[in-house]
Amino acid sequence: MVVVMQPGATEAQIQAVIERLNAYGFDVHRSTGVNQTVLGAIGVKPDFDIRHIKVLDGVADVYRVTEPYKFASRTWKKEDTQIEVKGVVIGGSEVVVMAGPCSVESEEQIQATAAHVAAQGATFLRGGAFKPRTSPYSFQGLGEVGLKLLREAADQYGLRVITEVMEVGQIELIYPYTDVFQVGARNMQNFALLKELGKVDKPVFLKRGPAATIEEWLMSAEYIIAHGNPQVILCERGIRTFETQTRNTLDLSAIPVIKQKSHLPIVADPSHGTGLRDKVIPMARAAVAAGADGIMVEVHPDPPTAKSDGPQSLYFDQFTEMMRQIRLIAQVIGRTVREPLSETV
Amino acid sequence: MVVVMQPGATEAQIQAVIERLNAYGFDVHRSTGVNQTVLGAIGVKPDFDIRHIKVLDGVADVYRVTEPYKFASRTWKKEDTQIEVKGVVIGGSEVVVMAGPCSVESEEQIQATAAHVAAQGATFLRGGAFKPRTSPYSFQGLGEVGLKLLREAADQYGLRVITEVMEVGQIELIYPYTDVFQVGARNMQNFALLKELGKVDKPVFLKRGPAATIEEWLMSAEYIIAHGNPQVILCERGIRTFETQTRNTLDLSAIPVIKQKSHLPIVADPSHGTGLRDKVIPMARAAVAAGADGIMVEVHPDPPTAKSDGPQSLYFDQFTEMMRQIRLIAQVIGRTVREPLSETV
Amino acid sequence: MVVVMQPGATEAQIQAVIERLNAYGFDVHRSTGVNQTVLGAIGVKPDFDIRHIKVLDGVADVYRVTEPYKFASRTWKKEDTQIEVKGVVIGGSEVVVMAGPCSVESEEQIQATAAHVAAQGATFLRGGAFKPRTSPYSFQGLGEVGLKLLREAADQYGLRVITEVMEVGQIELIYPYTDVFQVGARNMQNFALLKELGKVDKPVFLKRGPAATIEEWLMSAEYIIAHGNPQVILCERGIRTFETQTRNTLDLSAIPVIKQKSHLPIVADPSHGTGLRDKVIPMARAAVAAGADGIMVEVHPDPPTAKSDGPQSLYFDQFTEMMRQIRLIAQVIGRTVREPLSETV
Amino acid sequence: MVVVMQPGATEAQIQAVIERLNAYGFDVHRSTGVNQTVLGAIGVKPDFDIRHIKVLDGVADVYRVTEPYKFASRTWKKEDTQIEVKGVVIGGSEVVVMAGPCSVESEEQIQATAAHVAAQGATFLRGGAFKPRTSPYSFQGLGEVGLKLLREAADQYGLRVITEVMEVGQIELIYPYTDVFQVGARNMQNFALLKELGKVDKPVFLKRGPAATIEEWLMSAEYIIAHGNPQVILCERGIRTFETQTRNTLDLSAIPVIKQKSHLPIVADPSHGTGLRDKVIPMARAAVAAGADGIMVEVHPDPPTAKSDGPQSLYFDQFTEMMRQIRLIAQVIGRTVREPLSETV
Repeated sequence: MVVVMQPGATEAQIQAVIERLNAYGFDVHRSTGVNQTVLGAIGVKPDFDIRHIKVLDGVADVYRVTEPYKFASRTWKKEDTQIEVKGVVIGGSEVVVMAGPCSVESEEQIQATAAHVAAQGATFLRGGAFKPRTSPYSFQGLGEVGLKLLREAADQYGLRVITEVMEVGQIELIYPYTDVFQVGARNMQNFALLKELGKVDKPVFLKRGPAATIEEWLMSAEYIIAHGNPQVILCERGIRTFETQTRNTLDLSAIPVIKQKSHLPIVADPSHGTGLRDKVIPMARAAVAAGADGIMVEVHPDPPTAKSDGPQSLYFDQFTEMMRQIRLIAQVIGRTVREPLSETV
Repeated sequence: MVVVMQPGATEAQIQAVIERLNAYGFDVHRSTGVNQTVLGAIGVKPDFDIRHIKVLDGVADVYRVTEPYKFASRTWKKEDTQIEVKGVVIGGSEVVVMAGPCSVESEEQIQATAAHVAAQGATFLRGGAFKPRTSPYSFQGLGEVGLKLLREAADQYGLRVITEVMEVGQIELIYPYTDVFQVGARNMQNFALLKELGKVDKPVFLKRGPAATIEEWLMSAEYIIAHGNPQVILCERGIRTFETQTRNTLDLSAIPVIKQKSHLPIVADPSHGTGLRDKVIPMARAAVAAGADGIMVEVHPDPPTAKSDGPQSLYFDQFTEMMRQIRLIAQVIGRTVREPLSETV
Repeated sequence: MVVVMQPGATEAQIQAVIERLNAYGFDVHRSTGVNQTVLGAIGVKPDFDIRHIKVLDGVADVYRVTEPYKFASRTWKKEDTQIEVKGVVIGGSEVVVMAGPCSVESEEQIQATAAHVAAQGATFLRGGAFKPRTSPYSFQGLGEVGLKLLREAADQYGLRVITEVMEVGQIELIYPYTDVFQVGARNMQNFALLKELGKVDKPVFLKRGPAATIEEWLMSAEYIIAHGNPQVILCERGIRTFETQTRNTLDLSAIPVIKQKSHLPIVADPSHGTGLRDKVIPMARAAVAAGADGIMVEVHPDPPTAKSDGPQSLYFDQFTEMMRQIRLIAQVIGRTVREPLSETV
Repeated sequence: MVVVMQPGATEAQIQAVIERLNAYGFDVHRSTGVNQTVLGAIGVKPDFDIRHIKVLDGVADVYRVTEPYKFASRTWKKEDTQIEVKGVVIGGSEVVVMAGPCSVESEEQIQATAAHVAAQGATFLRGGAFKPRTSPYSFQGLGEVGLKLLREAADQYGLRVITEVMEVGQIELIYPYTDVFQVGARNMQNFALLKELGKVDKPVFLKRGPAATIEEWLMSAEYIIAHGNPQVILCERGIRTFETQTRNTLDLSAIPVIKQKSHLPIVADPSHGTGLRDKVIPMARAAVAAGADGIMVEVHPDPPTAKSDGPQSLYFDQFTEMMRQIRLIAQVIGRTVREPLSETV
């Protein structure tokens, strides 16, 4: 921590700050400049609230020198984290595709979707079983029945399952059905949930909160890792800004920023990022071009009748086209998107 | 819902939209103008996702005509909701003050705080028992021990208790200790929690999420009311913006906006809204001047040693001064802040 | 400037950074810690772009130690700046009221407004003569004719004039008619304009840009002062956020922040800050309670027929009521708002 | 315009709204529903301020039915606008590259840059001659000398010139030197400037303001077109959000949104969009993948010594690599980026 005193801070003020820093357990290194005194506070306390010093008399500003996270940091681990799920590696050279409906609605719906996305090269089937919604009057999900249907459809078509867990109490219920636990954007700072997921032996897919800075997002990843689970996959799904033409603003710059700051894989979700079907394909292309390790998209056999998020779900033929396009983009930057099954035969 | 067709939309496109609207259960009223056709879709479906229509060919834009909430709306209930908690009314002419530390840390700390804030005219004692934190390395709260200390301190000094519930599983545990359940900003859209709080017979204090629009906030209030609990108190605590001088940007305009749109009481929290102690008093004054029904502030016997949020906690003498100032402001606008005990004797 | 090296930065990387800093003219003070090396770069270069160092190999982060502004800073000048305009002091104990229509529309309109606001205690008459507008199809202002009408109305009722200058070329034209030059929010970083206003001997009223941080705003003030004009008045008029219920989000926290960081007076504009007439009075009260040195509001004899910003303009009787209310609020915090003329007779 | 009355609005309120609408010149079409009355107000008034109706008693909400712009709209002109500048077409199948330093600093610098970017396939040379800056203490540009150097370098290497015009008074000076007038983000709503550029017979490159919605941006384009100049090129360069890891948040979703709403070409500027050199290449790839009609980037022979924006400027070899990569991306989506000269010989 670096403490910058105001020009004109008195010796008494400087001494008071030094004493306070000592009281908090820091060693202090003082540099007295012509205009200003700067204090270096040494000691590893990643959770120290720097505002404690900021509010003291004579202090101009305070900066943290160490990142507030450690295990999630590229500084701590240089090489990319690769997470293997039943033979598919996230964070390697393959750009992994996770696709499926917003909610599991019926056996027919999820089977049809699984068949299609698997045939086109997706390796993960997504789908929600618990859908507490903005409106109390909307479809709230099939619950465990949905989880079973999801697992069966995935198994039948050789897909892995990713589904959302919304609270601590659901972990045990969901565990046998899923391969990856998804933490939704609204739960990014549900620390009780993150803590429990830190004790689980399956990967966690951590969506960025709509108002979360990249640093806060990495702090949440840290939370999971610090509690024992190093298998964290980040997912950029759009932040809230003043622009309302899209549901959120997909922050693709987060991809190169994360790649620099962290070793964790990062996936982009252009469905939630834009909220409108016809914007999904261009933004999926852009995300792959920017270096995303994967794409998560919503696909539905009949979007207009979807019980949730239909307007941002792709039709089957749009998904096929998206896969074709991102496959080419991936090649350009030295990566791969899996070939469609029909063509690999 | 009003559907505006593009100028130049074909008759086939218009018919397709009408058919789709009929399929969704709407009656359609068509107005054919010189340049554009406008369709009025009639039928009460507050949860209908208008993006279903927005993505159809030939559609220029779609507007919801009814607000997406009902019970929370001033349209549905004209008179102000007043919530009585052991003789204190929130939403009446009194501006209610809720004060206490961020976290309950010890018996000594909470007793001292309760004594002071009660003496100065606060009627609610706040304090957190569960503090899952941004950093996995920080103090995580005293749990049920904290709740007991909080209740005892409140009872001793004639205060009501308000404390945060973070997940469904905690409701039963917290119930006997609290008078009001606080829902934190990060949980504003934790619908499972809101639903359960809808079944509780104590008031719910609903903080605005840092990225939540006023409409989304009222939707969350609706969720609670629709599940059976009409006693909802809103709390503005700052939204996330690009400005970083303050922790959040306290959106005081939300106070007159809520007063117009809803009948629910609204409280302001200048401690979280600013994040810095020396900004709390001016913003508390401003909130009362803007028409807030209450003020929630953090107060601590020794802020520099507080285990959480010390830098935004008031010293006792600052709290006394704040009370003095907002009491005068309240009078100016025809409201009251309770007198200090010493002066009422 | 403080340069924090990454843990594990090599000696070669550290030396390269030191050399670069020396090349830029800084003296370097090195602290070698257990985990990390920190470099203090000494030398006063307020405009140095710290990203030059941020992009070097091995650098974790870089912090500016000195504020990027000097003359606008409370560090440089402790006592509040008071700006006197024909006997009225902005930044003293009086809360100054500036009122008038958005645009000067006719002699009748501006005379009636001047008469009313003067009678109620306003000391400045505002009104725009040049109104280039969002839509190319809207009323664009009366130009110099408007300036004349504004000056005449102000003189007749003992008011001072404040009006907006939109480009360098208008300064000379406006000079004889105005007492204070207003710089609109969109021009906050029009540096050519700021530079020229730095050479003028009348005060400058600098509105905050809708996307400007407080630091950038103070940098713009610095620009004017550095070019020779120390008479700068800041005006908070709302920032752009995701909330759309109000036109902008009036950031009242900026008032105590500015009071701490700068010696310059700050005025609030609740008309632009909210964009809706019925929100203006509560936000004007809140601004005064938060410590604003003045209030600027739009008032119109017949808002529904106003050629611009009618919906956010107060009716005369609303203005009277606002004055009555903020006068009481001002007293509470030891300040004054001028009495209505009718009552001082 | 559609006016939605509140449920329970009285007949007198409805009549008052109808009369007001008639007074403003609208024909009114009334639909009386079970719960609510909806009024359709017919008449083409693109600049009507809907807040006039919003503030009336009994009105729940008001929606504009027609877009506030016309000439910039895809509705008005279906086919893509293609702008030809000395043989290069912007908005066609080629993805056009505009490159050069932030500021023209010297003949040597601009010649070297022009030679390199031309050799790699850029067709436009960018460079600023007037650099009024955030800090009053920074380099302010070479002025007309810079323009001459820019023109000479461009001519020598077969490039077109794009340079920024900052105020009306500069148009005449810049005219002979430039092929395209750039309007900076801070000037996006400098309507006096837009108006004058509407009278010029050269294209205008309109950067999006950091706080501007897409609708406001198109309104600014409309302003130019309505004043006579249909050659408008839009440029996305990042918006201000709460995320500070990047200088701005490059909103690539704006590309597909603009393509749907408007016929105008859109270019992306990843240099300003990210503010850091190592993020430029991935974001340039992403922009091309998202469908941008061009890329503008900053390139400098020696970025560490650049007088402005060095940290976001590419080294020559980075530019070469960027060109190689976006050329491949462009092919994938059926477009082209010009080949390097050395390879076309």
